[in-house]
Amino acid sequence: MRIVIVGGVAGGMSAATRLRRLMEHTEIVVLERSGHVSFANCGLPYHVGGVIEERSALLLQTPQSLGARFGLDVRVGQEVAGIDRAARTVRVRDLATGREEDLGYDALILSPGAGPVRPPVPGIERALVLRDVEDTDEVVAAVAGARSAVVVGGGFIGVEVAENLVHRGLQVALVEATEQIMAPLDPEMVEPVHARLREHGLDLRLGSAVTEVGERTVTLADGTELPADVVMAAVGVRPDSTLARAAGLEVGPRGGIVVDEHLRTSDPDIYAVGDAVEKKDALDGSATLVALANTANLQGRLVADVIAGLDVADRPVLGTSVVGVFGLTLASTGWSEKRLRAAGRPYRAIHTHPANHAGYYPGAEGMALKLLVDPETDAILGAQGVGGAGVDKRIDVIATAITGGLRAADLAELELAYSPLYGSAKDPVNMLGYIDRNHRDGLVETLQWHELQERLDAGATLLDVRTPGEHESMPIPGGINIELDRLRDRIDELPEGELVVHCQAGLRGYLAARVLEQHGRHAVNLDGGYLTWAARPPRAVAVAGSAADGTGAAGDDADRGSSAG
Amino acid sequence: MRIVIVGGVAGGMSAATRLRRLMEHTEIVVLERSGHVSFANCGLPYHVGGVIEERSALLLQTPQSLGARFGLDVRVGQEVAGIDRAARTVRVRDLATGREEDLGYDALILSPGAGPVRPPVPGIERALVLRDVEDTDEVVAAVAGARSAVVVGGGFIGVEVAENLVHRGLQVALVEATEQIMAPLDPEMVEPVHARLREHGLDLRLGSAVTEVGERTVTLADGTELPADVVMAAVGVRPDSTLARAAGLEVGPRGGIVVDEHLRTSDPDIYAVGDAVEKKDALDGSATLVALANTANLQGRLVADVIAGLDVADRPVLGTSVVGVFGLTLASTGWSEKRLRAAGRPYRAIHTHPANHAGYYPGAEGMALKLLVDPETDAILGAQGVGGAGVDKRIDVIATAITGGLRAADLAELELAYSPLYGSAKDPVNMLGYIDRNHRDGLVETLQWHELQERLDAGATLLDVRTPGEHESMPIPGGINIELDRLRDRIDELPEGELVVHCQAGLRGYLAARVLEQHGRHAVNLDGGYLTWAARPPRAVAVAGSAADGTGAAGDDADRGSSAG
Repeated sequence: MRIVIVGGVAGGMSAATRLRRLMEHTEIVVLERSGHVSFANCGLPYHVGGVIEERSALLLQTPQSLGARFGLDVRVGQEVAGIDRAARTVRVRDLATGREEDLGYDALILSPGAGPVRPPVPGIERALVLRDVEDTDEVVAAVAGARSAVVVGGGFIGVEVAENLVHRGLQVALVEATEQIMAPLDPEMVEPVHARLREHGLDLRLGSAVTEVGERTVTLADGTELPADVVMAAVGVRPDSTLARAAGLEVGPRGGIVVDEHLRTSDPDIYAVGDAVEKKDALDGSATLVALANTANLQGRLVADVIAGLDVADRPVLGTSVVGVFGLTLASTGWSEKRLRAAGRPYRAIHTHPANHAGYYPGAEGMALKLLVDPETDAILGAQGVGGAGVDKRIDVIATAITGGLRAADLAELELAYSPLYGSAKDPVNMLGYIDRNHRDGLVETLQWHELQERLDAGATLLDVRTPGEHESMPIPGGINIELDRLRDRIDELPEGELVVHCQAGLRGYLAARVLEQHGRHAVNLDGGYLTWAARPPRAVAVAGSAADGTGAAGDDADRGSSAG
Repeated sequence: MRIVIVGGVAGGMSAATRLRRLMEHTEIVVLERSGHVSFANCGLPYHVGGVIEERSALLLQTPQSLGARFGLDVRVGQEVAGIDRAARTVRVRDLATGREEDLGYDALILSPGAGPVRPPVPGIERALVLRDVEDTDEVVAAVAGARSAVVVGGGFIGVEVAENLVHRGLQVALVEATEQIMAPLDPEMVEPVHARLREHGLDLRLGSAVTEVGERTVTLADGTELPADVVMAAVGVRPDSTLARAAGLEVGPRGGIVVDEHLRTSDPDIYAVGDAVEKKDALDGSATLVALANTANLQGRLVADVIAGLDVADRPVLGTSVVGVFGLTLASTGWSEKRLRAAGRPYRAIHTHPANHAGYYPGAEGMALKLLVDPETDAILGAQGVGGAGVDKRIDVIATAITGGLRAADLAELELAYSPLYGSAKDPVNMLGYIDRNHRDGLVETLQWHELQERLDAGATLLDVRTPGEHESMPIPGGINIELDRLRDRIDELPEGELVVHCQAGLRGYLAARVLEQHGRHAVNLDGGYLTWAARPPRAVAVAGSAADGTGAAGDDADRGSSAG
């Protein structure tokens, strides 16, 4: 029996090594188009930046090491030009010699990954991409003599590449067609990243389309010419389904190969895994593209289990992701608010601004968290975080809670490891649960930052319950100020009608709203307080009101797919 | 209506402030014996060490600030001397004047916390404890002129205090009666902490009983006299149930106040919360003591909800905990292996030695993880971690998985936030799930470090599949060496009979076992490899074989109860 695997990174190599552990005596051939297998794809931007100094650190395995350890027949520089499904053969082209030959298979696994998309503008062929080790070598060489760079696209790869080009000392512009980078997240969560990028000298161009790539420049739609010794295309990735299409295998609405829960394509002898296949969304079951390395690795292992006869099945995906940039962490799981709005799904949003650990212990770092909850069932629909240390931990805990079917209210009761070095006695995740319970039990009504203006226009009074000092130095225009600790005494001073209360982060506003409600006044709390409001995007109306931003599947823009990490 | 609360930290203050949010017009009186309420209990050791420089940082609220914000009547220096349940009054003693008066209540909440235990040895009255701000002042004063200190007891508080006394420049001995500190964890997970303490100059005395506290010394059972300008008693805490007992309220087998799921004591008008009450263990439903601040805070809030008529109920506890000491993190959730053994519960243990993030990204730190699983149901029974960055994250994720009812095999599929800065494409938690699946599916049989000698004595051959260099520099005595990559070729060289394979961390051993099994040889993999074996306690037989170590409830030794964090 011979199993042939097309693609020797992440999913493909996970499948190959797992197959060997389960089937010692089966012939396993891995065909890889590039010159390397099992390389650290997610490390490529960091080698460009010199953060990962040694190129060799990216090369986790070689065909030789995989042969010695796993008895795998790994062939690099080999492109599969076609599949003869009737004959059960693949046509293999040696890229060095151009010679082709047929190779028979009993089972075929496709793991071709996803390829970078190039925007269709004149001159774009000069733009470099970052998909494999050869690309990286090319970028490193180009950067060596360069002084300026333009990165086109503000997704994970674009942001990581831009940061690393800054590390290299280049003058870097990042051009993003929409009003925010990191499309899977909501704008008020991404705004701190915009600020951080600019603080580090990056020329961030939002809402800007590239119209032409010149010899040493990039031209934007508004006529701006950006200096660009190097141009990087990072507008996203697309499933590499060319081979599957040519073989007549079913390809889905989002352009990925269609597989069943056993990762079988429409041909029962052909399987597919990783970035190239369509997954099922964990929230609504729709077809989605999630180009993430952990998903690819999991699928690689599962397909081996299926072929070996173990009882396993693939699962829907949440699309948890994280990026670190200039010391800031940005992470998310599940759906964003804009995506929920675009889909017309009801939700409640909760914003908080906790510290990663007890404030009285030195070195506490701040973060912003956002939780999205189904108001009917209290199911957790998504979460996002941005800030310093501990953001990734909170998103991981919430992703696990979603997978475990916990309700948002259950987050209050999670027993998380607490000492003042690591968290708070009421951990930020617990606090989200506490706040959700207040919503569930009807104890508080909140307003989102993008709903404020409309409410004020309708005649509501904005009441700032912070101290006078805070009110003066960080105002939301149009508000009056009575600090919380004096509110009970001064309640008669308040004008009639609806009150929108706010504070710095949301807690005092909630306390004030409780006081007011129990004194017979209707009060709505501005969710996340001044801090969330202050992180609103500059062009708030356009972003908050646009359904178009929300139509992309979560993680569409991600590309951690072919890492062997 | 008047609600009286006894105890103004953690549980008590959480109850008071939540009650105010729910019941604006109710009289709420908080009676606190010490001079401070709502102080940062978990920060006290760090103020002793000067890590938290300002004493004021520990004082999160004052009676005045709580009065202004929450309309609470907070009275410090007030001891409750007795409860007249028939009259529904408490007798309140003013500790400054000695004057007593009766105070009526409609509902009474007891939140007295847990008090430090002093071992019954001559001279122990000289030993200081660390429970409140006054204690801290006393310790700070005593340390100022001191050169040496002995800490009696190696639980959370003992370890944190010992570390902080070292920070202060004292010569410090830590005396622990059993063979390991941090009783809730297993010995091989704690051994790295022993090593770290010693590296920092701490005189660690395990298996040592204190027989006498002298004027400037502490004497051990073996006759050793340790210099001790300062003596700290930290052998554990005991629920402060004196008042409840005296009032005839039901007290449980472990000495804590008995409450129902609505936190009601045996008197329907009296509630109790926090470290003083017995909880229900999440695994077996038994009565347990968990003195942790998050649990106390949660109960404080719940009791307020109950009194206000909301539909809530208390939950069983896992007892997740963490301690940081000299840069090392030690964390656990659920049951330990020794506790499972003592209870006669079947389990499988899995040890791994991952890095906190991708090894090819600079700065990766190592850790050891341990997972305990029910072999029948695949339920997660407990987890422990020790090492550098990221240990707390993994334990939190597993604690959340337990609460969500996930099986160990489900850990493989968790979608955790991955980038090379934060994790691995196969996160350490995912890896535990992958390994568990191999057990579940019968693909591997493992042996624990404490079972090795017996198996070798019975005639098994120990096969080291690491490289010759590793084999020579880090040997397990009695083993032969064939490195994994040459195993298939040299399989005929192996002696007959059972094989125990091992490598450095367990992975190559597993690969070797799969090869051997599929070539018709029976091979058992040493779980966690050389690294886990090397972390075995020096007196392994005594520790591994002793049921006595396992009879304490998880978290018995913890005291994060009265923090207001």
